[in-house]
Amino acid sequence: MQKESKPLLGITLGDPCGIGPEVVLRALASRKARAAARFLIFGSSAILREVADKLKLRMLRLQAVSSCEEATGKPGPFVLESISCPKRLALLGKPTAVGGRASIEWIKNAIRHALDGRIGAIVTAPINKEAILKGGHNWPGHTELLAAESGAAKPVMTMVGGGLRVALVTTHAAIGDLPRMITKGNVLQTIRIVDAGFRRDFGIKNPRIIVCGLNPHAGEAGRFGKEEQRAITPAIKRAQAEGITCDGPLPADVVFTKSCVGRYDAIVAMYHDQANIPVKMIAFDSGVNVTLGLPIIRTSPDHGTAYDIVRKGIASSGSMVAAILLAADMAKKRGSVR
Amino acid sequence: MQKESKPLLGITLGDPCGIGPEVVLRALASRKARAAARFLIFGSSAILREVADKLKLRMLRLQAVSSCEEATGKPGPFVLESISCPKRLALLGKPTAVGGRASIEWIKNAIRHALDGRIGAIVTAPINKEAILKGGHNWPGHTELLAAESGAAKPVMTMVGGGLRVALVTTHAAIGDLPRMITKGNVLQTIRIVDAGFRRDFGIKNPRIIVCGLNPHAGEAGRFGKEEQRAITPAIKRAQAEGITCDGPLPADVVFTKSCVGRYDAIVAMYHDQANIPVKMIAFDSGVNVTLGLPIIRTSPDHGTAYDIVRKGIASSGSMVAAILLAADMAKKRGSVR
Repeated sequence: MQKESKPLLGITLGDPCGIGPEVVLRALASRKARAAARFLIFGSSAILREVADKLKLRMLRLQAVSSCEEATGKPGPFVLESISCPKRLALLGKPTAVGGRASIEWIKNAIRHALDGRIGAIVTAPINKEAILKGGHNWPGHTELLAAESGAAKPVMTMVGGGLRVALVTTHAAIGDLPRMITKGNVLQTIRIVDAGFRRDFGIKNPRIIVCGLNPHAGEAGRFGKEEQRAITPAIKRAQAEGITCDGPLPADVVFTKSCVGRYDAIVAMYHDQANIPVKMIAFDSGVNVTLGLPIIRTSPDHGTAYDIVRKGIASSGSMVAAILLAADMAKKRGSVR
Repeated sequence: MQKESKPLLGITLGDPCGIGPEVVLRALASRKARAAARFLIFGSSAILREVADKLKLRMLRLQAVSSCEEATGKPGPFVLESISCPKRLALLGKPTAVGGRASIEWIKNAIRHALDGRIGAIVTAPINKEAILKGGHNWPGHTELLAAESGAAKPVMTMVGGGLRVALVTTHAAIGDLPRMITKGNVLQTIRIVDAGFRRDFGIKNPRIIVCGLNPHAGEAGRFGKEEQRAITPAIKRAQAEGITCDGPLPADVVFTKSCVGRYDAIVAMYHDQANIPVKMIAFDSGVNVTLGLPIIRTSPDHGTAYDIVRKGIASSGSMVAAILLAADMAKKRGSVR
């Protein structure tokens, strides 16, 4: 009975040549993670076994399933192999076409399962863009793939860690493209998605949202850039008129100080580093990436494939465990417990 | 004898309507500051007295001097009044023409004293740009004024706090102007000034410098912006060829994590918030702004005039004390002790 109250989370193994399999092994062996959820791995048990052997990690007692339904009523963890992965891919520490293809295939399969309601959330191990390109795909990252596969208009990358929850208006964009991308519509849509997402999946009734400026000193009344006046302030005003509790734009170097943090439930940042610098600094080993604005729940650790440390057995699973705990919590809050 | 070994620091009072006078009163009353240096205030004793009275702070036992020479051999603190300031300006909490004019006049006088070697360094309390404009000047901030008055080609704003020392290639620039401003020449000049400044004023023999990228993931091989390939990497290579110990560009959200901090003496950041977000987050009440590349030594607290809290008596002098201690230390290292 108790077991069934835990949500079933889909774990995608990520790039088989990176640290994904290692952090999944470590995370699923942790008491905390097992207490919070049951797991269905979209990946390869051969890869996991190879990594466990070579890095001398405890192998998971995986139950192979050919469909999600076989997991009902059992503790798991389970593995669903949808694509065979050649041996000697594990711990390779470089991008490969077959690894890139497999990592995308696993994610797509997990998305289908989540859309059908067969899993409560997806937690994704890191993928590598070069490998994906070699494998014949061209996604800048998980976020864009998730949006396309799930039919979401605007996925909102949100960094969670160290007491901060920071949603991004833009993600993998060159700094030079930001003025063109920071529009009233883009900022407003982000605020709306954060408001709705925090109500539904974080259980916060009336989220207090603070919005960062784009420019230094939030433009200082237009002296250092006009985006605040042209796009950000109008978006905030419109959101307020819709009944959303939001404020700003405040200079980003004010928003992340202790005078501000704690007074707000969510921060809306304009670009990648504005969010990632503070979150990675304060939550180096426990930062989680959440994608809001999707019909499904998705979290991931905030690190990459880290090819350089792949054979060292030193990859920390702190961030992966945090991603699992948050996904489990969100799945319960949304009521998609299964 | 011991007293004379302390450097004489020039303190500019900043905007008389802001929290400058309050934090100067508090800082100069602190044992730590008095142990590290002697002080010559460029400002107004009437303003200081008004603030002390109204906020019930201890008034300093100021010795009025009409020239710097009168301070020789005496403990101080001293005040040099070069411009009379009307009463009721203190704690006004808004920009005024007379306040703006006075704050600029005090800084200019302090710069002249520093250039002549009569004071060992300048520590500047915050000024307000709107007040400066009203007063008939148009400086974006201290940095630009200091450069113009001291004939420096490129002032390099450097944030110091919480174990971080971050120098900026650009300062008060709109995000949209960055691609144009991040040139090989600009980055190289910054690296050179950081290298020279850290040797001379921080006493570090061979400073290890790490340079941030401009774009997310440092551009990821040109996928999210070309400035790394076009400007930053060539500047680093050139600096290395000149014998400077520097590396990068690294993604900014990697540079400020605990895996990086401590491995380098100085960080070179590309823009205002890239430096100010991490420093203000980690050193909220103790961040110091140092201007490298000037013929003189100058530090300041990293906060503004804070008009909104001006009558509350709650302004912390933590950052001002840190600015004084650093200036005293730099003055001693440079050997301009007097």
